[in-house]
Amino acid sequence: MEKATLMGNRPMKRGNKMRKLSRYALALILLATVVMSLPIGPSIERFVSRKSPKKNVIFFVTDGMGPASLSLSRSFRQFTQNLTIDDVLTLDHHLIGSSRTRSSDSLVTDSAAGATAFSCALKSYNGAIGVDPDKQPCGTILEAAKLQGYLTGLVVTTRITDATPAAFSAHADYRFQEDLIAQQQLGDYPLGRMVDLMIGGGRTHFYSGTDIVYGSRGSRSDGRNLIKEAISDGWSYVGNREQFDALDNGHNVSLPLLALLADYDIPFDFDRDDSEFPSLKEEAMTAINALTEATKDSDKGFFLLIEGSRIDHAGHENDPAAQAREVLAFDEAFEAVLKFAEESDVETIMISTSDHETGGLVTARQITKAYPEYAWYPKVLDNAKHSGEFLRKMVQDYRGDSKSTFIEQDVFEDNLGITDYSKSDVDELLKLTSSGEINDKLNEMISTRAQIGWSTHGHSAVDVNIYAYANRRASWHNVLENLQGNHENTEIGQYMANYLGLDLQDVTKKLGKTKHSPTGSLSDLELNTDEYHHNLHI
Amino acid sequence: MEKATLMGNRPMKRGNKMRKLSRYALALILLATVVMSLPIGPSIERFVSRKSPKKNVIFFVTDGMGPASLSLSRSFRQFTQNLTIDDVLTLDHHLIGSSRTRSSDSLVTDSAAGATAFSCALKSYNGAIGVDPDKQPCGTILEAAKLQGYLTGLVVTTRITDATPAAFSAHADYRFQEDLIAQQQLGDYPLGRMVDLMIGGGRTHFYSGTDIVYGSRGSRSDGRNLIKEAISDGWSYVGNREQFDALDNGHNVSLPLLALLADYDIPFDFDRDDSEFPSLKEEAMTAINALTEATKDSDKGFFLLIEGSRIDHAGHENDPAAQAREVLAFDEAFEAVLKFAEESDVETIMISTSDHETGGLVTARQITKAYPEYAWYPKVLDNAKHSGEFLRKMVQDYRGDSKSTFIEQDVFEDNLGITDYSKSDVDELLKLTSSGEINDKLNEMISTRAQIGWSTHGHSAVDVNIYAYANRRASWHNVLENLQGNHENTEIGQYMANYLGLDLQDVTKKLGKTKHSPTGSLSDLELNTDEYHHNLHI
Repeated sequence: MEKATLMGNRPMKRGNKMRKLSRYALALILLATVVMSLPIGPSIERFVSRKSPKKNVIFFVTDGMGPASLSLSRSFRQFTQNLTIDDVLTLDHHLIGSSRTRSSDSLVTDSAAGATAFSCALKSYNGAIGVDPDKQPCGTILEAAKLQGYLTGLVVTTRITDATPAAFSAHADYRFQEDLIAQQQLGDYPLGRMVDLMIGGGRTHFYSGTDIVYGSRGSRSDGRNLIKEAISDGWSYVGNREQFDALDNGHNVSLPLLALLADYDIPFDFDRDDSEFPSLKEEAMTAINALTEATKDSDKGFFLLIEGSRIDHAGHENDPAAQAREVLAFDEAFEAVLKFAEESDVETIMISTSDHETGGLVTARQITKAYPEYAWYPKVLDNAKHSGEFLRKMVQDYRGDSKSTFIEQDVFEDNLGITDYSKSDVDELLKLTSSGEINDKLNEMISTRAQIGWSTHGHSAVDVNIYAYANRRASWHNVLENLQGNHENTEIGQYMANYLGLDLQDVTKKLGKTKHSPTGSLSDLELNTDEYHHNLHI
Repeated sequence: MEKATLMGNRPMKRGNKMRKLSRYALALILLATVVMSLPIGPSIERFVSRKSPKKNVIFFVTDGMGPASLSLSRSFRQFTQNLTIDDVLTLDHHLIGSSRTRSSDSLVTDSAAGATAFSCALKSYNGAIGVDPDKQPCGTILEAAKLQGYLTGLVVTTRITDATPAAFSAHADYRFQEDLIAQQQLGDYPLGRMVDLMIGGGRTHFYSGTDIVYGSRGSRSDGRNLIKEAISDGWSYVGNREQFDALDNGHNVSLPLLALLADYDIPFDFDRDDSEFPSLKEEAMTAINALTEATKDSDKGFFLLIEGSRIDHAGHENDPAAQAREVLAFDEAFEAVLKFAEESDVETIMISTSDHETGGLVTARQITKAYPEYAWYPKVLDNAKHSGEFLRKMVQDYRGDSKSTFIEQDVFEDNLGITDYSKSDVDELLKLTSSGEINDKLNEMISTRAQIGWSTHGHSAVDVNIYAYANRRASWHNVLENLQGNHENTEIGQYMANYLGLDLQDVTKKLGKTKHSPTGSLSDLELNTDEYHHNLHI
């Protein structure tokens, strides 16, 4: 009674109520008659969709981007483009909270446990790919969405078999089992094919050492060529820029699509040759357009993962100049997708977060024992023309007989933009042989001068930001209520599952014991952790 | 016409409209008659207060607390108290955004420019206390609130003349002019007394070298004793724990109140002797209760600044064990004030943010050349019994003849909780003489073992968090609309001014050219920057 009054309805006497009820019943019968007489097709679909509207969920992961990466990249852009202090990244406009990142077995997560927290909405151990702490496969949002009729996609700039995309589309005890992950991503596991679109690098895990593709031998040891198998299973395959361009920005795509644009990583955006590799923005919009067109006549939309994968690599390598460009490239992709969402008639939400911070980046660094000045210098990053990774390869590939001069002029002056180097810098580079040490030396020269600090080549435990957007068809209130503030990373996964009405447990049951145990001896495992280190020392 | 339709009203014909208008006019006349016939007193006050309700604004500054401090302190508490991973700080429940912190002259702000951004809602240069980039005094929120009839207070754990409280209550070219700042805080400037309550340290700037207070000589060089002057001007003065306790948690306070509980800083909460110094929570609640009772019969509430001042000092000293305790002590103060606000009948908002990050704290640290493990160890911080600062004094004050044994047993084992020290650790400590170097050595021993990184003894440029709360009388929607997301630090100041309906420009006009130029030669300036370094090397 009181509630009815509060709702603005006057309480009714029993007689009135009965009369009102019979009027409702009559209306219902009339409505049912009308509906049943409608032709099957779009009209009835629209009617049904009122209860469960068509939805798109676009989930962005900025792998390894901590809070300091943002400040650094924003100030870098303000400096290089001479913008005002209130000129911020597109991401900045959409900050709504932060995420706690620890895994089940450490305060410092790796990307595998981090991605599994998003994909399965549960905490697992470092290294876990779509499996729980007992190494049992857990149903992922991507799988659950696919089983509900959504289309699904993965867009990355590193190997498509790397931890983040893998945790959405495969189940493995350890992240280094990338050959196994590739098989599952193509549908070679009990659920069958769950992914409709993959764009990224990592071709090497799709073919074997017995095959030669674009001049390289693959790294599979089982003799299989998954690319050929995929094509015969009906996948479209894209292996280079020319074929990628033929996708016409996603308007000329036949799904399922497997686009493997590099053997390992797509180069840092800082080093990227545009004639050879697309940008993350191009990859993302190709996926968005392809999935939009393919779901045009469906009452279900799509679930798409877009990862700024190599922000993390710039962090591992402690390369601030590459990281600033990598974050800005991600922001451009985010901005383009935002424009799509703003204009879309389909209920669409975008969520962007990081799995963890990488490198322990600090936008300040004490470079002498004297009390530090309060400053850091974006100009130093602006002066550099390539990443440390790129220049390290230049140094390693040099075959001439005047390496000192080459290092001084070509590497330091022309490409690092550093003229105040010392003879000992040159001597050190002449002596160093390991890729990691050469990287470190070059990146340290930049970081010291820019007064940028790093604490590790690994990850750190700082909370990472959550950004979100809901378009005019979606409820911003719902997003805000669930994601505003500080959250466990698993809550982000659970929110997406709830938003799409997915039952992850149900998928977990369907999966059974899908994944395989690691093969090989312990020394194989140890050898393979090089991939965990992003091939830094290979 | 169209608008009326959108608003849910049917368009009316002209005749209808006129009839409706005359009905409104009649209603208005009736209402005016009723209002004018009401007795003058509480009833009419309530009527008036609908337009400008009584308000409290409580502004918290966590000086030097960056995003990583939070993760560190939260995990530390979870570990030491054996709590679940979703046990978070009270602050965490109120995260709504982040603040960009740069000053007008550097990407890395100091606390003076940081506090001036909050107090005057404008960017100024590092070192500026309530002055703009041209060194002209700018009206502060505290002054504007006082001039509107609000009561005002400052609660800190460092010197009350230090940058953050100073920027709200004084105007000086440079932060080190603390003698001048003390004078202004007591009302010795054109606006007269603007502060009703001050609780903190920094007594030294209120008396001269010619006076002895609690066994110490003051640091003023002008021979004045501002404490005596203040008392004769009507201030209540509190100088120790016993007198503080007599304030009866704020229920026995005569305003204005000057509580100076230490010559310089109140000790870190980690080292605090409860019989000698109150906690930040006790300070805060004493202020809250005193201001609440003093505004009981007023139609205006209060503006109160509460600073967790020494989170910053733990950062400068790179002491993770002290910082974790300092953040938790702040969180307890925040929690207590939150409880007050939840129960208050007065419209109350709480905003908490940092001026900047200090130390470049990273919750992970690579300690060897080998690829780092993904972990950090709160246990190491838990094992320590005192801050590096406290133990450094122990080392310096030791007068016995077995200093090696003293360092091994008393310092390392019993107080740092470290047993795996080496002989070279002992030898190093025996040799070091400067306070800064001894601090560094002790804190480094903790940080390395905990795998906690630091990049500087200064500040860094990372965005800092914004936390907010609005009680049931206040509009959460209003707070959220203005502070949710990423903001320039000046926007936080402007929001508080707008919220209280303050005109800062008007106060700026009233101030004229209040502040004084720095006295002394450049070498004096340089000497004085030791205070800028928080007496670390004194």
